[in-house]
Amino acid sequence: MEQKELHSLLEQVSSGVLSVDQAMLQLKLAPFEDLGFAKLDTHRAIRQGVAEVIYGAGKTPEQIRDIASAMIQRGQKLVLITRMTEEAAELVAAALPLKYHKIGHVGLVGKLPEPDGCGSIVVATGGTSDMPVAEEAALTAEALGNRVERLYDVGVAGLHRLLAHADELMRARVIIAIAGMEGALASVIGGLADCPVIAVPTSVGYGASFGGLSALLSMLNSCASGVSVVNIDNGFGAGYLASMINHLGGKA
Amino acid sequence: MEQKELHSLLEQVSSGVLSVDQAMLQLKLAPFEDLGFAKLDTHRAIRQGVAEVIYGAGKTPEQIRDIASAMIQRGQKLVLITRMTEEAAELVAAALPLKYHKIGHVGLVGKLPEPDGCGSIVVATGGTSDMPVAEEAALTAEALGNRVERLYDVGVAGLHRLLAHADELMRARVIIAIAGMEGALASVIGGLADCPVIAVPTSVGYGASFGGLSALLSMLNSCASGVSVVNIDNGFGAGYLASMINHLGGKA
Amino acid sequence: MEQKELHSLLEQVSSGVLSVDQAMLQLKLAPFEDLGFAKLDTHRAIRQGVAEVIYGAGKTPEQIRDIASAMIQRGQKLVLITRMTEEAAELVAAALPLKYHKIGHVGLVGKLPEPDGCGSIVVATGGTSDMPVAEEAALTAEALGNRVERLYDVGVAGLHRLLAHADELMRARVIIAIAGMEGALASVIGGLADCPVIAVPTSVGYGASFGGLSALLSMLNSCASGVSVVNIDNGFGAGYLASMINHLGGKA
Amino acid sequence: MEQKELHSLLEQVSSGVLSVDQAMLQLKLAPFEDLGFAKLDTHRAIRQGVAEVIYGAGKTPEQIRDIASAMIQRGQKLVLITRMTEEAAELVAAALPLKYHKIGHVGLVGKLPEPDGCGSIVVATGGTSDMPVAEEAALTAEALGNRVERLYDVGVAGLHRLLAHADELMRARVIIAIAGMEGALASVIGGLADCPVIAVPTSVGYGASFGGLSALLSMLNSCASGVSVVNIDNGFGAGYLASMINHLGGKA
Amino acid sequence: MEQKELHSLLEQVSSGVLSVDQAMLQLKLAPFEDLGFAKLDTHRAIRQGVAEVIYGAGKTPEQIRDIASAMIQRGQKLVLITRMTEEAAELVAAALPLKYHKIGHVGLVGKLPEPDGCGSIVVATGGTSDMPVAEEAALTAEALGNRVERLYDVGVAGLHRLLAHADELMRARVIIAIAGMEGALASVIGGLADCPVIAVPTSVGYGASFGGLSALLSMLNSCASGVSVVNIDNGFGAGYLASMINHLGGKA
Amino acid sequence: MEQKELHSLLEQVSSGVLSVDQAMLQLKLAPFEDLGFAKLDTHRAIRQGVAEVIYGAGKTPEQIRDIASAMIQRGQKLVLITRMTEEAAELVAAALPLKYHKIGHVGLVGKLPEPDGCGSIVVATGGTSDMPVAEEAALTAEALGNRVERLYDVGVAGLHRLLAHADELMRARVIIAIAGMEGALASVIGGLADCPVIAVPTSVGYGASFGGLSALLSMLNSCASGVSVVNIDNGFGAGYLASMINHLGGKA
Amino acid sequence: MEQKELHSLLEQVSSGVLSVDQAMLQLKLAPFEDLGFAKLDTHRAIRQGVAEVIYGAGKTPEQIRDIASAMIQRGQKLVLITRMTEEAAELVAAALPLKYHKIGHVGLVGKLPEPDGCGSIVVATGGTSDMPVAEEAALTAEALGNRVERLYDVGVAGLHRLLAHADELMRARVIIAIAGMEGALASVIGGLADCPVIAVPTSVGYGASFGGLSALLSMLNSCASGVSVVNIDNGFGAGYLASMINHLGGKA
Amino acid sequence: MEQKELHSLLEQVSSGVLSVDQAMLQLKLAPFEDLGFAKLDTHRAIRQGVAEVIYGAGKTPEQIRDIASAMIQRGQKLVLITRMTEEAAELVAAALPLKYHKIGHVGLVGKLPEPDGCGSIVVATGGTSDMPVAEEAALTAEALGNRVERLYDVGVAGLHRLLAHADELMRARVIIAIAGMEGALASVIGGLADCPVIAVPTSVGYGASFGGLSALLSMLNSCASGVSVVNIDNGFGAGYLASMINHLGGKA
Repeated sequence: MEQKELHSLLEQVSSGVLSVDQAMLQLKLAPFEDLGFAKLDTHRAIRQGVAEVIYGAGKTPEQIRDIASAMIQRGQKLVLITRMTEEAAELVAAALPLKYHKIGHVGLVGKLPEPDGCGSIVVATGGTSDMPVAEEAALTAEALGNRVERLYDVGVAGLHRLLAHADELMRARVIIAIAGMEGALASVIGGLADCPVIAVPTSVGYGASFGGLSALLSMLNSCASGVSVVNIDNGFGAGYLASMINHLGGKA
Repeated sequence: MEQKELHSLLEQVSSGVLSVDQAMLQLKLAPFEDLGFAKLDTHRAIRQGVAEVIYGAGKTPEQIRDIASAMIQRGQKLVLITRMTEEAAELVAAALPLKYHKIGHVGLVGKLPEPDGCGSIVVATGGTSDMPVAEEAALTAEALGNRVERLYDVGVAGLHRLLAHADELMRARVIIAIAGMEGALASVIGGLADCPVIAVPTSVGYGASFGGLSALLSMLNSCASGVSVVNIDNGFGAGYLASMINHLGGKA
Repeated sequence: MEQKELHSLLEQVSSGVLSVDQAMLQLKLAPFEDLGFAKLDTHRAIRQGVAEVIYGAGKTPEQIRDIASAMIQRGQKLVLITRMTEEAAELVAAALPLKYHKIGHVGLVGKLPEPDGCGSIVVATGGTSDMPVAEEAALTAEALGNRVERLYDVGVAGLHRLLAHADELMRARVIIAIAGMEGALASVIGGLADCPVIAVPTSVGYGASFGGLSALLSMLNSCASGVSVVNIDNGFGAGYLASMINHLGGKA
Repeated sequence: MEQKELHSLLEQVSSGVLSVDQAMLQLKLAPFEDLGFAKLDTHRAIRQGVAEVIYGAGKTPEQIRDIASAMIQRGQKLVLITRMTEEAAELVAAALPLKYHKIGHVGLVGKLPEPDGCGSIVVATGGTSDMPVAEEAALTAEALGNRVERLYDVGVAGLHRLLAHADELMRARVIIAIAGMEGALASVIGGLADCPVIAVPTSVGYGASFGGLSALLSMLNSCASGVSVVNIDNGFGAGYLASMINHLGGKA
Repeated sequence: MEQKELHSLLEQVSSGVLSVDQAMLQLKLAPFEDLGFAKLDTHRAIRQGVAEVIYGAGKTPEQIRDIASAMIQRGQKLVLITRMTEEAAELVAAALPLKYHKIGHVGLVGKLPEPDGCGSIVVATGGTSDMPVAEEAALTAEALGNRVERLYDVGVAGLHRLLAHADELMRARVIIAIAGMEGALASVIGGLADCPVIAVPTSVGYGASFGGLSALLSMLNSCASGVSVVNIDNGFGAGYLASMINHLGGKA
Repeated sequence: MEQKELHSLLEQVSSGVLSVDQAMLQLKLAPFEDLGFAKLDTHRAIRQGVAEVIYGAGKTPEQIRDIASAMIQRGQKLVLITRMTEEAAELVAAALPLKYHKIGHVGLVGKLPEPDGCGSIVVATGGTSDMPVAEEAALTAEALGNRVERLYDVGVAGLHRLLAHADELMRARVIIAIAGMEGALASVIGGLADCPVIAVPTSVGYGASFGGLSALLSMLNSCASGVSVVNIDNGFGAGYLASMINHLGGKA
Repeated sequence: MEQKELHSLLEQVSSGVLSVDQAMLQLKLAPFEDLGFAKLDTHRAIRQGVAEVIYGAGKTPEQIRDIASAMIQRGQKLVLITRMTEEAAELVAAALPLKYHKIGHVGLVGKLPEPDGCGSIVVATGGTSDMPVAEEAALTAEALGNRVERLYDVGVAGLHRLLAHADELMRARVIIAIAGMEGALASVIGGLADCPVIAVPTSVGYGASFGGLSALLSMLNSCASGVSVVNIDNGFGAGYLASMINHLGGKA
Repeated sequence: MEQKELHSLLEQVSSGVLSVDQAMLQLKLAPFEDLGFAKLDTHRAIRQGVAEVIYGAGKTPEQIRDIASAMIQRGQKLVLITRMTEEAAELVAAALPLKYHKIGHVGLVGKLPEPDGCGSIVVATGGTSDMPVAEEAALTAEALGNRVERLYDVGVAGLHRLLAHADELMRARVIIAIAGMEGALASVIGGLADCPVIAVPTSVGYGASFGGLSALLSMLNSCASGVSVVNIDNGFGAGYLASMINHLGGKA
């Protein structure tokens, strides 16, 4: 509430146009409206008609089906369901036109939108075991309207595999680098590319990988600039952030 | 040397405009890696005329002065020196037109460029003790040609301080959220804003903050989407990445 | 046995009203520790007629049933069973009037008492996955005679949800803030409210949440004053302590 | 500004007792957040005339002196300065009537208030090396208007020392249990007393105490009910929370 | 073969009582290491006729049965089997006179020897959930010829339970203090008793007990003298060491 | 207070020999005496005329001198001061007949007693850098009346050095095995000797020794039976416990 | 691409022998060829006719069978499959001449080659539970053409078992030392032998072994020279490296 | 002692040639001689005339000088002193012909030997700050008779720097890869080269590098085969092991 609005309100009270209680109410509601919670709300809803997300972990198949149904009935064109079990997929598929991506444990109800982001997002993995996380990231980005290029199994132990794709890396607008074990992929890609690199450590590995801690620390300590990190196995978060960066443009 | 430049050079050779030896000379001046890894160099060199960076930690004042002098002599318009001690600043200032920013331990030789990024970068901190890291981030971003808004001491324990700046947060193109202790600032800002948030945990705190570990884990686990994390106290990395995101645009 | 009772007993012996052997008997019936440690016993027994607690983890359904039966037979009006499996609930329900709260894994034999605490206890959670811990806390507090208000899923990534309940937070006498992941809820509530906040980190999360460690460290480092922390997932402990604080009053 | 004050103000405007501009002035003097977040401010400001706190760590002696001077000039009756170095104390003492408590690194400008809390706060330590933290807690509580009883060096390795003070523990309204090393004091006191126990792990110890981690984990795992924990060495936080609990009463 | 036996054998050879070949035979029967490392063997073999130990974890029921049978056939009077599953117990019981102790997962083939140690070993636990570890310790000690007193569920949260047994603690020659959670029992007992205390942290607990780490650190940091620690859940190790200490005597 | 004492007391009250108030007093004092705190006290005081201990860390030279002086004046024949700085030693030596052992940072006021323990205590170290801890252990044991044999620098990387002293190890009644780095010494000695082995991890090392954590974990996981562990660098604790074990004998 | 090659290429363009596009292609391919990626490729393929490796973890039985079949059809003489389940072995055995080594979870399709390495590789373990890792190492080394000697269960708690094999240790060209728990074996062997020792920590153990962390740290801190470490349970890595060292020779 | 030697000894006793006591002595000494301690001794001494090593950390300048002098007097041609301070270097240089290498904190008394190893050892570092560790490794290897090639500052963030030296990497017989921060260098080199790679994590870095832990874990989890790891900052260990591997050859 700006000072002139406040002045005007007080004048209305003074002139009897507004009762004291009506003024109280407005003053109590004020901070919430003033702080632009409409915006807050809007910014969290992913652009209308594109995708609404259900985090499937810890929800029963029935709960997922019911939430997805409600979204579709509200006019949602695409519903993205992450961390979805096969069991849940079967149940949802009986009620809704679900496409289930088994490797990434991702379900999609509705049609993937055409890419409307500015450029392409490269999703690269160190090994094939990182694919579940990579698919979660890639499908999230696609569901949010991005063109995605997948470069899987280009880990640094066979550098030529990665270098053979130097062009894709050079052309990308955002790169998601996904790796477990020693997580060196993020640094090497960060050194090759000149765009933001979102690093996703994975829990792939054994022994001293300590459930992804090794890759996490490695990525946080990346000596390449332009690299930032999300939580272990957080493919969704990386896909969402990549999409956000890829859609930057209008604002200035 | 971009691929189209190379193509043009080869055509000049083919058409006889350029002799083989003249072409050789040009190719030799381009560093070895230009023959294929040219982008490596280009992407790492910050846009010519803007800023070259010296990481001051572990270098003697003399080394810093000599490197900076060499850069200036090569025609560099601005040299950014991070983690610079006062002692080093004194020595460099005797030889070069250095402006030393004491709080952020940052030295600048040359003039800050006009902002040429697309939007503004907000640098927010939880407390006043996070200011050294924040200034490192802010000055880095400014040296790289960005407009920076500083929101210091807006930690979540006094939420109204942060909410009073909701507008700046809403308008930002990238936000750098810097906090020690429990690092909750990143989540709260990530929930308020709809742009990428780069979280920087700081080593501010004592006891169970374990040198920044608490803030680091907190930020990695942020339940707000669009948040990614860099190393503890890594103000430079955050400023660099924010600038990279803020300058995205031409490529598609 | 209070000191004045002891004094009275000794006077009866002195005056011959009580024989030495009768006095011996009374002193022997009073547990040994009554002679100085009486309070130990009393303070641990929750106010007679309110609730006796069985920690269900690691006990067989049969053991739980037998202990609960014995308590009821001793005249206990309400028995609270925490960490109770559905299997145990079924077995106990066959023998006793058990009400089983599935989400919180809490069983109650007997009727919840009327609230007799001074004010209300707010139990707030960051997400819906924190509900099992929250229900353990809420039901514990209710079983101990407190009025409880539940504010679930008010995590800091959507601050408006929390602020919409600012009134409840302002009115509370004690708040239990329960959150996993980054655990920022405790700090934000601690900054909003002016009453003691008991923070409960939960093991909800994945990757770098390290089984609740992230939330635990975050809460311990809270920059808001008035916040203290109990063990990860310890809903019972928080409910018990909240009740203790809420019942403070008479003593001075 | 409490809601009833706001109501009264609006009524004065409505009835013409107060002009719109006079009301504007009052509302402007009240900080912005008074219009809705008034409580935020009030609850954080410790009751007027009692104590304002300066966290001395990381501030220069000059900064501390200037902040304290400003507070005193604003009519503050008592200023509490924690983590204050002797050097800072000397400088402040030259300008203000400072009483410096060397062991607790606490400075007080002004007179300690009379205790106005409901009961007494016991501050107990395991060893003499825990005294700095204990004094920070005790002086904080005293500055906030509480009666404090100090029980130092009553660690569990000589249980009789602790038991000799069973009476004080029984009579307390809140107990602050401070210990390093194995931190067992909190559990033992938690088992003896029937009031809230605030446990403060300290960094006292060596080797596997890992800077207070051992005591911290020990206290979090306390098998005694009614125990909660604050950060390692956080005497101020414990004193503040204890005062908050001790002053509970009016609200219901 | 003890040195004096060897000496005697050599004298017999020297005097002709024993031929060279007879001596050769005796020396060959003694394992190779008897010629110098005899003590290696002797000291590791628990005093003949007392007990031989099989560590059951990771062995199939068949393997356990076969090893135990072989021992019995070699004349072993008692075989102690630790970490034995019920399944293994059933299989072994079909072939050998096994007595299976379910709580401690300990099997005994043969008769427990009469106590021949110097004094009694007290095995104390903080809670009932520590009983599996305690029984492993107690039965190990009994199998090795010690008198054992069990004091279970005497945790420090109810100090009077422990103090009621002060006499047993005072009389003990060695005490094994077993506790999970905060592990304070070791310190409290260490402060009460004047004999060696072997502390066994257990993995009992949840959350910040981190699988026994909390109790382990607590016990290592015990401020009571005379306390040493074995591995988490290592009941056997504690029982073995306690027996070793209890049988000290002859040597000087 | 035994039951017969209680009976007698009640009879005295009954017969008027004792007034009610006198009885009250005795009953109030009772629990403390009853619980054998005399014994408690005695057991903590090391056998009269042998040694009283001052933990020097965190005490000023003046405090150490004054405490030591008081002890000597009370008739103490030997005062042991651990973790004593050279500076403190100089100050104390000016007032008292101090012998300062520089390597172990141990000061002794008075004459070392004749060994009265049953056997010898071997103090073995892995390297020469472990000597400060070893000397603290050895001098503690000597001050408490034990015969000590020092085997320094017998680490497992040169096994022959250790094996060359197999005899001493075989003859020992207790062995203190002190090592940093990988801490393998405890296991190897535990496998060679047939007496209790007290393992002391030291903070000697760098990198992944993590301040003694490596040696600590190694020793806790010792596959040799009869090994227990004290805190990192806790030479005093090991010496004290070794003496306690070595003096066992009379009790049974 | 050497300068004379570059010169020649440019001359071909100048003379029209090479088109601009053909030259572009060669220049783009150049760095990859120049950097010897042929070599890269070759060095990663294990010497032809010896062994190709499939890491079985995380692959379905069908995938393993198909990959192995393809290799055999390509003329591969031996296929080594690590971390292979029995279930996978059954499926593969139905299609290919598989020999499955149950303890090491290793499958071999084809015949083990004759040893062609320079010397023998000793694989030693601390206990029998380390055998799975040891067999993975031993079979890997054998599949790669090495002579392997197995010394199992020679842990340091019974040093004579290890010393009895001193000759094998002395004769070895490389030793793989495998141990869990305290991991002391690596240090002891490193001190005995004069050849490279590859230490493999295993996850064997419980409690404070923390999944192999204890052995890992112990081995990294080995005070014996010539010892290096691979990941916990990484038998394959140790076998591969040992083979690499054993085959060193021709190169100089 | 072989059986025939034993037989012969017994015959000498039987015939009186050897007294019982003389036989006892031989039998007691036997195992030590039998186990080849001559060999043990020899293998630990680095090949005569090459180098003897003094670990300078924790030794006084005087101690270092005296040990070095003694070695030289014993005929040692080269003495290598690691972790040597400048202060120590000055003192030693006054007495002996010392060459002090400031960066690596290495001192050499005597002349470096001619390389006698089979091939060259490459010492590569990620950054210039890793040079102290690298020089320790390189000088150690040179002192032990190896040809060393230094490739400094070839970290993975600028891959072309490393690839420009592919030839050196391909030609090396052993590579020492030294890096702090994320430690990716070891994996990338391990993927490029076909010889053993010894990875040395360094403590270079800040924040989440946790004193080298990040690089250590990264290197242990290397997905490249042929990589093993030594302790953080252990340049000496890497140089020693590299030399050992490089000198392998004669034995088979």
